[in-house]
Amino acid sequence: MTGGGESVDRRPAGEPAAKAGLIGGAYRPLADADVKRIHETVLDVLDRIGVADPIPVLRERALARGCRIDRGNRLCYPPALVEDAIAGARRDIVCYARDPRHDLDMSGTHVNFYGGGEAVTMFDFRTRAYRPSTLTDTYDLARLSDRLEHIHGYSRLTIPTEIADQRVADINIAYASVAGTVKHVSLSFAQAEHIGPVQAMLDLIAGGEGHFRKRPFCHAGGCCIISPLRYARDNSEVCIAATRLGAPVWVIAAPQAGTTGPAALAGTLVLCVAEALAAWLLVELVAPGHPVIVGAWPFVADLRTGSFAGGGGETAVLNAAAVQMINSYGLASSVGAGMSDSKLIDNQAGYEKGLSVALAALAGCNGVSEASGMLASLMGCSFEAMVIDNDMLGCVQRAVRGIEVTDETLSFETIRAAVEGDGHFLRQPQTRRLMRSEYVYPHVADRSARLQWEQEGSPGILEHAHARAAEILSTHYPACIEPSVDRKIRERFSIELAAERMRPSPPR
Amino acid sequence: MTGGGESVDRRPAGEPAAKAGLIGGAYRPLADADVKRIHETVLDVLDRIGVADPIPVLRERALARGCRIDRGNRLCYPPALVEDAIAGARRDIVCYARDPRHDLDMSGTHVNFYGGGEAVTMFDFRTRAYRPSTLTDTYDLARLSDRLEHIHGYSRLTIPTEIADQRVADINIAYASVAGTVKHVSLSFAQAEHIGPVQAMLDLIAGGEGHFRKRPFCHAGGCCIISPLRYARDNSEVCIAATRLGAPVWVIAAPQAGTTGPAALAGTLVLCVAEALAAWLLVELVAPGHPVIVGAWPFVADLRTGSFAGGGGETAVLNAAAVQMINSYGLASSVGAGMSDSKLIDNQAGYEKGLSVALAALAGCNGVSEASGMLASLMGCSFEAMVIDNDMLGCVQRAVRGIEVTDETLSFETIRAAVEGDGHFLRQPQTRRLMRSEYVYPHVADRSARLQWEQEGSPGILEHAHARAAEILSTHYPACIEPSVDRKIRERFSIELAAERMRPSPPR
Repeated sequence: MTGGGESVDRRPAGEPAAKAGLIGGAYRPLADADVKRIHETVLDVLDRIGVADPIPVLRERALARGCRIDRGNRLCYPPALVEDAIAGARRDIVCYARDPRHDLDMSGTHVNFYGGGEAVTMFDFRTRAYRPSTLTDTYDLARLSDRLEHIHGYSRLTIPTEIADQRVADINIAYASVAGTVKHVSLSFAQAEHIGPVQAMLDLIAGGEGHFRKRPFCHAGGCCIISPLRYARDNSEVCIAATRLGAPVWVIAAPQAGTTGPAALAGTLVLCVAEALAAWLLVELVAPGHPVIVGAWPFVADLRTGSFAGGGGETAVLNAAAVQMINSYGLASSVGAGMSDSKLIDNQAGYEKGLSVALAALAGCNGVSEASGMLASLMGCSFEAMVIDNDMLGCVQRAVRGIEVTDETLSFETIRAAVEGDGHFLRQPQTRRLMRSEYVYPHVADRSARLQWEQEGSPGILEHAHARAAEILSTHYPACIEPSVDRKIRERFSIELAAERMRPSPPR
Repeated sequence: MTGGGESVDRRPAGEPAAKAGLIGGAYRPLADADVKRIHETVLDVLDRIGVADPIPVLRERALARGCRIDRGNRLCYPPALVEDAIAGARRDIVCYARDPRHDLDMSGTHVNFYGGGEAVTMFDFRTRAYRPSTLTDTYDLARLSDRLEHIHGYSRLTIPTEIADQRVADINIAYASVAGTVKHVSLSFAQAEHIGPVQAMLDLIAGGEGHFRKRPFCHAGGCCIISPLRYARDNSEVCIAATRLGAPVWVIAAPQAGTTGPAALAGTLVLCVAEALAAWLLVELVAPGHPVIVGAWPFVADLRTGSFAGGGGETAVLNAAAVQMINSYGLASSVGAGMSDSKLIDNQAGYEKGLSVALAALAGCNGVSEASGMLASLMGCSFEAMVIDNDMLGCVQRAVRGIEVTDETLSFETIRAAVEGDGHFLRQPQTRRLMRSEYVYPHVADRSARLQWEQEGSPGILEHAHARAAEILSTHYPACIEPSVDRKIRERFSIELAAERMRPSPPR
C-alpha cells in the first residue's frame, strides 16, 4: 500500500507476477569440485562412522542389502548402496492441494514456501509479549496462510499448548490445519499410531475410506535423526508409518554447527547431508521408491553462548549449500529458512529473514520451511509477522523469477519510441501491458512519499500488518470441511476447536 | 549482543571472519545466452539510437574514433569501437585508503560495501520524525563508518542542507568526510571547477602539492547520464575533471523501469547497461585507460503511483543482473542496493535491505553503494540504521565468503571423534580453533533467550543500535587531519565544521 492504515488490496487483478514453483538455482554457493568432495566425505561418514540405533525394520532391510552393523549398534552404509539408491530415486514429487491451483511441484529446482516451526508461543503485537499458543492459533494461522498468496502450503507453525495428550493434539492439529486452508498441509506426529485415526479423518473429508490416498492433500514425516548420526526411534516409526498416507514423507536432519555438528561450516554440511541421506535411506530401504522430501537443515550455534542462532549469514549460506547438495542428487530438498533470533517484528527480523529465505530460494529449494511468521529462534510465531513475511516472500519470489529475455522484453523498439517521443515510458503501450505481470506489489509495505506518510500519522508496516491480519482473520473462514462431514468428524474424534469459532462472530 | 541495553563489543579478537574484498559471483541471475543477447541489444542501442548531448571534448574524440552524430545531437557508437574499448579496459582498480588496511580491491568479483545516497534528511530515532541534514551529520556519519567494520568506505550519505552555495558545500563535504574516516572516500561535485580547491585541500592533508595523487584516498565522479540516453553536461564535465585526481572516476546511469526506462525488466537492464557504457566511454575516450567504476543502477517505479520504489524484488534482481553484465566486461561494477522505501527502521527496511544487498553482493558487485543507513527511498539517513545495517552487512559478508572446503573443514575426523566420544562438538579442539575465524558475530542483533530478553525489559535492536551509535559518536574522534594541517586548511578554505565539534565534549 502507499500509506494509510487501511488494508485494501490495491494490486491489479490478472496473471500474478509470482506464483508457487518458480525455477531457482541461479545461486550456487558451492563449486562443482566442492560438491564432489563433500559428497565423497558424506559417503565416507555413512560407510565408516555409520548411524546408530536403526529401528528393526530398517536394520533388517539394510543388512539384507549389504550394510553392516558396527560397534555401538551403528548401521554402516556401503557407498555403492547409497549411490545406487540415489541413482534410482523418485524425482517426480508433487504435494497436492484440495484446490489443484495450489498443487506444489517439488521436483527439479522448483521453489515453494511454507510454514513450520512448532513454536510454543504467539507474539502479541499490542503488549509486545509472548503468550502460550493454542489450537485456535493453529486454525487462525492456517486461515491466514490460506489467504496469503506467497505462502504456498501450511505446516503447523505452533503447538496447542493447552492439549496435554499428544494423540489428541496430533488429531486436533491435523483437523485445525485442514479446516483452515485448501492449500497443501504438512503434518507431524508424536507417535506412529496417531497416523491411523488422522488418516481416517482425512478419508472422511476426501469422500470416504481410501479416497484420501487418491490425491493426498497432506503429507507427514518427522525429524528421524538425532545429531550426530543417531536414528530417533519414534520419528523413524512415524516416517515409515507415514508412507501409508500415499503422500510424500518428509524427513529432517538438523545438526547444529558448534554443538551437535562441527564448528567448520563444511563439516556441519557434511554431517547434515549424511544424516539427511540416512533419513531418506530409512524410507527408501523400507518402502523403495516412496517419494521423500529430504530436509538437510544445517543449524548454527552462537559459540559465545552455545545457544541456537538461526538468523546469521552462516545459516543462510549453509542452507543454500544444503539445497545445492540435495538437489544435486535429484532428491526433493527442504531447509528451514526465514528464522530470526529477534523477539520483535523489527529490523533484525526483517534482514535475517530476507537474507536466509532469498538464499534458500535462489539456490532452488523445493520446500522452504519456516519461511513465514516465526520469531525468537523458532520459539514464537506472530500473525503480523506472517502478513509482513508474505510481502517479503513476494519480493524474494520476484527475484527468483529472474529476468525474462525475449525480443519483446529487450525493448529496443520501446526505447527508440520513448527517446524519439517525449522521453518517457509511462505512456508507452508496453508499460500498461506489463504493469500487472512484471511487478509484484506489496500489500502492507510502505511506499508512500515522506510528506504523505507524515500526514497519515507516520504509520509503520506493523500497524498495516496488524490491520490486514485482523481483517483476514475476522472475515476469511474458508469452507474447507462440509458441515455434514464436520459433524461426522466431531462424532468420531475429540475435536477441541469449537464449531462457533469457525465462523465470523455475529455483529454485536 | 546476547541481550541487554549496553553496547559492549563481545566479539572475540583476532582474524576477522569477514573483511572487504571477498569474492562474489556465486549468484548469476542471467544465463550466458541472455548475457549475450542483452549485450547485443546494448550495442544496437548505442549504435542505432545513440546518446544525446555529448560535451564538446567527447564529441570531438568520438568523431575522430569513427562515431557519428545523428539527428537530435545524438552520439552513435559503432559496435566495433565499443567492443574494442571493452577489450582494452583497465581491470586493476584499487581505491586506496589513508590506512592501507582499508584499501579496496575493485577488480574481478571482489565485494565492497559503502554508503552514498545524498539524502536531505536525518531520521530522529526518538521523535520518529525527519529533520534536515547538516554538515555535522556528514562528519558524524563518516566517524560512524570509520568504526563499523562491514562498511568499507564512505560516500556522502547526506547533504548539508544549511549550506546554500554549492562550491562551499562540495568543499565542506569533502573536508567533513576525510576528517571523519581513514577509509576510502567517494566524492561528488556539483561543478567541475569545485574539484581544484578540494584537490588542493587533499594535497595539504597528503603532505604537499602533488602528494595526493600518489596514493589517492578519495575518488570522484558523477551521474553523467539523464535517462533515457542523454549526457548531463555538468556531471560529464565533473567526470572528466575528476580524472585529474589520479583516482578512479565513478559514473552512474540510473534509468527507472516504467518511467525513464522500459517497464520490461530486461529492457531497463538493456538501457541501463547501454547508458553505463556510454558514461564509461565518456571517460575512456577522453582519458583512455583511466580507471572507472561503472555504476549501472537500474531503478524501479511503482507503477501504481509512478513513484520511485527501491526496496522491491525487481530492483534486487535487476541490480544483480547489472552487476553480472558489467563484470562480464571486466569493468569495475557498482549498484545502489540497500535501499528501502520504509520511513522507519522497521521490519520492512530490514528485509528490503537484506534482500537487495545480498543479491548485489552474491553477484560480485565491486562497490555496493547505498548499502548502509538509508531510509525513505533514499530521502533520509539514520545513525541507528547505519549501526543495524553494519550487522546486516556482516551476515551478508559471511554468506558471500561461502564455505571453504578442505580436508580439515570437511571434518571427517572431528565427526568421528565426537561420535565416538560424548557426542558433542563444543569440546572438540576444532571448535575452539574456529570460533573466531568461522563466525561473524553481530554487535546489536539480539540472540538472547526469550526469558532473558523479558527480564531485560524486552529491548529491541533499535535501542541497542541507538546505544551503540551514541557510544561511538561520543567517543570516536579519529585523528584524521593533523592539527597543523587543519589550521592551514581553515586559513585557506571556508570550513564550516567548528573545530570544537571535532573532539569529545568536555564532561559537564
